[in-house]
Amino acid sequence: MKKGDRVVLPFNVACGFCKNCLAGQTGFCLVVNAGFAGGAYGYVAMGPYRGGQAEYLRVPFADFNCLQLPRGDEHEDDFALLADIFPTGYHAATLAEVGPGESVCVFGAGPVGLMAAYSAMIKGASKVFVVDKVPGRLKLVEQIGAVPIDFSKGDPIAQIKDQTDGEGTDKGIDAVGYQATAEQGEEQPALVLNSLVEAVRPTGMLGVVGLYVPSDPGGPTEHAKNGELLFKMGKLFEKGLRMGTGQANVKAYNRQLRDLIIAGRAAPSFLATQRLPLESAPDAYKRFDKREDGWTKVLLKPGQNA
Amino acid sequence: MKKGDRVVLPFNVACGFCKNCLAGQTGFCLVVNAGFAGGAYGYVAMGPYRGGQAEYLRVPFADFNCLQLPRGDEHEDDFALLADIFPTGYHAATLAEVGPGESVCVFGAGPVGLMAAYSAMIKGASKVFVVDKVPGRLKLVEQIGAVPIDFSKGDPIAQIKDQTDGEGTDKGIDAVGYQATAEQGEEQPALVLNSLVEAVRPTGMLGVVGLYVPSDPGGPTEHAKNGELLFKMGKLFEKGLRMGTGQANVKAYNRQLRDLIIAGRAAPSFLATQRLPLESAPDAYKRFDKREDGWTKVLLKPGQNA
Amino acid sequence: MKKGDRVVLPFNVACGFCKNCLAGQTGFCLVVNAGFAGGAYGYVAMGPYRGGQAEYLRVPFADFNCLQLPRGDEHEDDFALLADIFPTGYHAATLAEVGPGESVCVFGAGPVGLMAAYSAMIKGASKVFVVDKVPGRLKLVEQIGAVPIDFSKGDPIAQIKDQTDGEGTDKGIDAVGYQATAEQGEEQPALVLNSLVEAVRPTGMLGVVGLYVPSDPGGPTEHAKNGELLFKMGKLFEKGLRMGTGQANVKAYNRQLRDLIIAGRAAPSFLATQRLPLESAPDAYKRFDKREDGWTKVLLKPGQNA
Amino acid sequence: MKKGDRVVLPFNVACGFCKNCLAGQTGFCLVVNAGFAGGAYGYVAMGPYRGGQAEYLRVPFADFNCLQLPRGDEHEDDFALLADIFPTGYHAATLAEVGPGESVCVFGAGPVGLMAAYSAMIKGASKVFVVDKVPGRLKLVEQIGAVPIDFSKGDPIAQIKDQTDGEGTDKGIDAVGYQATAEQGEEQPALVLNSLVEAVRPTGMLGVVGLYVPSDPGGPTEHAKNGELLFKMGKLFEKGLRMGTGQANVKAYNRQLRDLIIAGRAAPSFLATQRLPLESAPDAYKRFDKREDGWTKVLLKPGQNA
Repeated sequence: MKKGDRVVLPFNVACGFCKNCLAGQTGFCLVVNAGFAGGAYGYVAMGPYRGGQAEYLRVPFADFNCLQLPRGDEHEDDFALLADIFPTGYHAATLAEVGPGESVCVFGAGPVGLMAAYSAMIKGASKVFVVDKVPGRLKLVEQIGAVPIDFSKGDPIAQIKDQTDGEGTDKGIDAVGYQATAEQGEEQPALVLNSLVEAVRPTGMLGVVGLYVPSDPGGPTEHAKNGELLFKMGKLFEKGLRMGTGQANVKAYNRQLRDLIIAGRAAPSFLATQRLPLESAPDAYKRFDKREDGWTKVLLKPGQNA
Repeated sequence: MKKGDRVVLPFNVACGFCKNCLAGQTGFCLVVNAGFAGGAYGYVAMGPYRGGQAEYLRVPFADFNCLQLPRGDEHEDDFALLADIFPTGYHAATLAEVGPGESVCVFGAGPVGLMAAYSAMIKGASKVFVVDKVPGRLKLVEQIGAVPIDFSKGDPIAQIKDQTDGEGTDKGIDAVGYQATAEQGEEQPALVLNSLVEAVRPTGMLGVVGLYVPSDPGGPTEHAKNGELLFKMGKLFEKGLRMGTGQANVKAYNRQLRDLIIAGRAAPSFLATQRLPLESAPDAYKRFDKREDGWTKVLLKPGQNA
Repeated sequence: MKKGDRVVLPFNVACGFCKNCLAGQTGFCLVVNAGFAGGAYGYVAMGPYRGGQAEYLRVPFADFNCLQLPRGDEHEDDFALLADIFPTGYHAATLAEVGPGESVCVFGAGPVGLMAAYSAMIKGASKVFVVDKVPGRLKLVEQIGAVPIDFSKGDPIAQIKDQTDGEGTDKGIDAVGYQATAEQGEEQPALVLNSLVEAVRPTGMLGVVGLYVPSDPGGPTEHAKNGELLFKMGKLFEKGLRMGTGQANVKAYNRQLRDLIIAGRAAPSFLATQRLPLESAPDAYKRFDKREDGWTKVLLKPGQNA
Repeated sequence: MKKGDRVVLPFNVACGFCKNCLAGQTGFCLVVNAGFAGGAYGYVAMGPYRGGQAEYLRVPFADFNCLQLPRGDEHEDDFALLADIFPTGYHAATLAEVGPGESVCVFGAGPVGLMAAYSAMIKGASKVFVVDKVPGRLKLVEQIGAVPIDFSKGDPIAQIKDQTDGEGTDKGIDAVGYQATAEQGEEQPALVLNSLVEAVRPTGMLGVVGLYVPSDPGGPTEHAKNGELLFKMGKLFEKGLRMGTGQANVKAYNRQLRDLIIAGRAAPSFLATQRLPLESAPDAYKRFDKREDGWTKVLLKPGQNA
């Protein structure tokens, strides 16, 4: 590291020498956040690190955490997405062990779901289905060569089975998490997980990067408040499914993804719908939280004038 | 295959040429049991195949399904266990991706749990904990060099954490399934799964071979009757755990395990507590089902006189 | 298998139940060719099987060996390449363990080299260099988005290092074999292997599918006649390189590649330069052997009129 | 790291944050030895680091390089071997991808060969053959449950094939390197490699940790002086063998091996034949170099009185 280097940082903070970091599990560092496995910038309970959407950032273990970028300002928007959602989408596809020729269904076409679908295609998937209902998102799904499944138009599981000879897909990805909302609107925390158990064929694997939490004070039931969900374990077992979960180990992927960007083989910023100055963040967050159509992903530009 | 060959058969029936068989997933064959992934001898809903505890057996796709054994009658009891529980225990350790130097906890010290612990040690585990309360079983645990955890003497999770610097083990195995019974006796179908989520350290992996079913008419709740269990998904996700499930693909392992037996490096029949003629099966099943102490595993001998 | 099924066959003949077939190594079947590991249609020493470029073919173990294709006649040329060179190219990329974001150099832009480069890109490689000197081939390299390296214009190793910050590529592929010819023309059987040892960076892996034989009566030296080549073992070891070799296990890949073709994500027939009736085979082979420019790959059409 | 910690160091020096270190390839660090991939204490061309057989050692990147040991002085000799030969032997077995139930042949029963055989057994190998001719070494082979092959008593390849139904072993390990000496005594740098090509069965894999160098001024031929060896590439290819090479990435293994030692499941110091004070090193090295019988492995004890 030298002053003036152009770098991008993972949202995780990691030490580089604990046993989890050595195993490539930098999202579960045992050193940076005493008493817990994992640290991050600006997350509750993830250690004493301020949020990364800022002009300046204090970076511990900088040699380990910084990823070098080529000098200049090319690919600026694509590189920005290396901090979190591109690796997170790629993590989903990696947890699901997506390989060339396979079919995949992705639940959720928000930024992470789109990046998961995009990553599945980078890994050579033959057919990628993405389930959502927001028209602007489903349009982006089509744009990257995946198959949009509009769950407001009918049961998504049936739609997926119809297009896979009744079998379901080889692999499945949860890019939604516990805040899944059913057609009618109430929160159904296990809806996406249980849908994946149905939509993926026997012997398949699920990659879960949508968030699940051990404590959810606003959950619809007592059990949900404690992170316990009614999970179709019987069906999962009968089908011999496997499942990988958890936040992305960004450092395990960001170098390879950077090289795809530099080579012109990946351009994740296709999903950026707005580029705004840092001051606009509060307003932009509000619109994104309401899932306003046309606000898929905002890129904040610290140097830009409002 | 020639008349007179000495062979052992997997409990699964498989064709050898469907896409699941080609992928080594012979427990999920798409050919032998129309409309379902997987066939077996003498199992409900697993196809038109009579049970294997018999003097003669009709074997479809025999070249594919039979595993050749050395001539003679050496290792007869060890080889018999290649039909099911040795590979099933090994499958558990494989699903959990147990590797050299790792610590593992196994819930259940019945035949499958013992075989899982034994297999974890074959794969080089450094420390294997096995949880049960039946004294005869816990004694066998000790005999193979694993650490018995008696859950009637205190919280098994606390006992395991105490012996792993408070961290929990690297990997975990469920060799019990939905019929888990708590200390006081009522059925708690998710008890073992949720215990594993606590007992295994962040980044770990769970291998689940204890049975879970999509329909359990005798389940304690409506959800349990439908194979839906209250699962600690929030904690699993926070810890970034992975999980593999399902019945064993016996053919993926039985050749290697046979060779360990021949070389004298494995002798799974240490757990056989009785050797009885075929006629004694009904009585023996009753005693095993009641978990009578001293009836860990019965070997049936078709040719033997009562 | 039913009469009327549309299928494609691997060039290998395999039984489906020997230990090598079970391990997915169908190119090394222990049953179909007594005393040797591996059988094939119409190859010297590969068993009593007539060549596959024919109107009718006798197929042993047909359920195992045939790959089902969709009814109709779509993708006919692409599917034809599933018999050999597409899986062989893919095997090369698999032996080299090519993964997303990696750089790869491929020596040889004949049909196999082109398929190897194409497969490396399917597997997500960021940058693929392909070395040859035939203009028509180098043009195809460019057409698929890879980087042509013309070895008649300068040292190919230097050209590759120039484009990889002096490091060399992450992985390398030999799609030439022992009949490599140096710039001046004499046969140099280890030329490509030793070039790969130089062109690939430390910790890399080589995939070798170009043919090497244990006996080459026309070899330039006594040692070459016995398949012994002067190999840069010292450099290979110092760099910690790994190497995989051998003919393709077609069945390990052809299903996935078929699905990529059906989904429109792969179209390997881009390299077909001629489509000719079966009668034209002798003449076409002559032209191909002479590497006439414009004769990269001929597809023979048994039903077609001359 | 705190003053007073009990630690053991890899013979490699590594930074922990370059791309090779991140990939677990700490033997090929790109930072610690400018212009070369890899650094080590006291090796020619491996950077400005003094040898580790000393009372005090300057350790760069200490948090990353040091492996913590339990307080006290238990297992002192076993832990000492974590610096180099235990991980190097384990690396050999890992490069050869040794798995449970497999057969393995190891050429060389010096310290590294013995550790490779021992590691293959930890990984669950069913049968391990070790080739040497020094009686004291062959005795140790037997002592760990492996099969000694005395090459002074007959062709080792024939002996191995005789004990594997004529097939050869599943995997093979070269723990000798270029200084192999044939029965009659002259140096034959490719002897062990070419023997492995014969002794391992088709589809097998070779792990090469015996040293090969790109420049050997004392080599028997011009080619040998340049690290070019007459290698049976034709046979290797025909058998579809794979090969991994290079010095051990100690940090990839030492934690797991430490845990096996602590748990009492590994005790590599069985091969230590002498424990001597540091001053005796020059004399001990001489005896070891001459392969004096009874001098298999010397442990130097800095604090011990002469």
